[in-house]
Amino acid sequence: MDHLTYKRPLQELLNIKYPLIQAGMIWCSPWQLAAEVSNCGGLGVIGAGSMYPDVLEEHIIKCKKATQNPFAINLPMLYPQIEILIDIILKYKVEVVITSAGNPKKFTSLLKENGVKVLHVVSSLKFALKAEAAGVDAVIAEGFEAGGHNGADETTTLCLIPLISKSIKIPVIAAGGIATGSAMYAAISLGAQGVQIGSRFVASVESSAHSNFKNEVVKANEGDTSLTLKEVTPVRLLKNQFYNELQDLYATCPTSDVLKAYLGRARAKKGMFEGDLNNGELEIGQVSAIINEVKSAKKIFEEIIEEFKFTQKRMSTLQL
Amino acid sequence: MDHLTYKRPLQELLNIKYPLIQAGMIWCSPWQLAAEVSNCGGLGVIGAGSMYPDVLEEHIIKCKKATQNPFAINLPMLYPQIEILIDIILKYKVEVVITSAGNPKKFTSLLKENGVKVLHVVSSLKFALKAEAAGVDAVIAEGFEAGGHNGADETTTLCLIPLISKSIKIPVIAAGGIATGSAMYAAISLGAQGVQIGSRFVASVESSAHSNFKNEVVKANEGDTSLTLKEVTPVRLLKNQFYNELQDLYATCPTSDVLKAYLGRARAKKGMFEGDLNNGELEIGQVSAIINEVKSAKKIFEEIIEEFKFTQKRMSTLQL
Repeated sequence: MDHLTYKRPLQELLNIKYPLIQAGMIWCSPWQLAAEVSNCGGLGVIGAGSMYPDVLEEHIIKCKKATQNPFAINLPMLYPQIEILIDIILKYKVEVVITSAGNPKKFTSLLKENGVKVLHVVSSLKFALKAEAAGVDAVIAEGFEAGGHNGADETTTLCLIPLISKSIKIPVIAAGGIATGSAMYAAISLGAQGVQIGSRFVASVESSAHSNFKNEVVKANEGDTSLTLKEVTPVRLLKNQFYNELQDLYATCPTSDVLKAYLGRARAKKGMFEGDLNNGELEIGQVSAIINEVKSAKKIFEEIIEEFKFTQKRMSTLQL
Repeated sequence: MDHLTYKRPLQELLNIKYPLIQAGMIWCSPWQLAAEVSNCGGLGVIGAGSMYPDVLEEHIIKCKKATQNPFAINLPMLYPQIEILIDIILKYKVEVVITSAGNPKKFTSLLKENGVKVLHVVSSLKFALKAEAAGVDAVIAEGFEAGGHNGADETTTLCLIPLISKSIKIPVIAAGGIATGSAMYAAISLGAQGVQIGSRFVASVESSAHSNFKNEVVKANEGDTSLTLKEVTPVRLLKNQFYNELQDLYATCPTSDVLKAYLGRARAKKGMFEGDLNNGELEIGQVSAIINEVKSAKKIFEEIIEEFKFTQKRMSTLQL
């Protein structure tokens, strides 16, 4: 609580109009989505985690043609050929890289020396402090309700944002459970400088998610997702046949090797990209319960900003 | 989003100045705490779940002497002698009853016919709709991050409040993860009409928690609580020796009967009231990570309201 006038450090850092980042999700975040969000004044993000190097290169080239504004690449640190991806990112002078699922020390210096802004995704205060020490420009703090890979501490966004905001000096971007303007407003009132929104953009026209998956997201109700596979890598997904079979396996008290073997490979691609709703892994957040329609990214973006402003106006009239 | 001017339905319903309810927690919420919160202009709550009928009667009599303002009784519906408690509540014309852990249909009509306002604690939209249908005056929607008994769907406060607020007509009170004025502000901006705060008041001077337990709450860091015993009744508690032994038991793939037998009886009393930090059950929310000092209830209350107003002022200066 060291300043009363709200500043815009994130907008200045990233050269964006609105402090709204679209998550760079595997199988769902192609150049079409990233360019559209960047054109709206947010930060669009290409999800490199599910792309071969030549595919990423193509997406970057097309994104640059489709928008004059900055965009970012989401780069899971566990990607096997990560050095090749970094070379491509540097070659095309992509403005921002969002690193996740790994040690931010590894590439932050190299990226920053080349003028790339680095944001790192964390699920706990401990990792936020490590990321700050590694020199990243901002952290994306993602709570338990978020879709996809998640942290071991299970800290929710509501608890995570104040904890990290008061403990580090670099900007904090809130993620997990945010799909609307009022949730964006709430996250910023908790101390975040902006938000990252994933699930809402999975169910966008421009998302590369299979239409079967988009429809499941639209249909999802409260309680339809679960954080599971905690012994392997915690992941939040829709409860489908694959999930139910996994629960049957859990009833036998399996080792993590047995779980890994059952999980196998390419489950996420099968579900999210190929539309196999039974055998695929359908990663999505709890907030899918309030997503009821596939819309264009532009409409989603504009509705969020409009609701944000409405919420701000409504809250300004509240008298305790 | 059907009104732009913020109204105060909860304050009118409960005849309180601030939409801040102190949770009526077992072993932690005596008349001293309830009276102090009510004197501050919030709704103080006596936790009847851990009281014999004569003890509750004594607490009501003392609370009435200590405050002129309304206060409430938290009544878990599974309490074995619940009819006796209800007779006492009606005898002393307690203004508000908060029912939890059970079917709200059972006593809502009786209580309302006698002029008692009824609030019911829910963990999901499904239960919120049931509570509204049962005729309760408001629901307290409690997220996954909350301490103590919790819901099966694991929906976080950030996801739960918008979902319920847009689906029912009666006021929604947010609970779980709220210990500060900015979190109270965030919850209200999500659509809640007020908040219920538990963990922060466990670590108050007036709380009847054992000082050992209060000190543990103050020391707790992120990741120090866990939602466990999901096969029996999900409960969030501090990870102590009892919890660790429970995890060893989980590694053997136990039946729920084995878990129940291990849990035994009176674990909560042992930990929270008698201060046995090793063998007791220490129920507290994730938000304990930002609670760093035992303070008087009055100071806690005043700081929350002050930070709420600060947050409101800060957010009003934000320009997108």
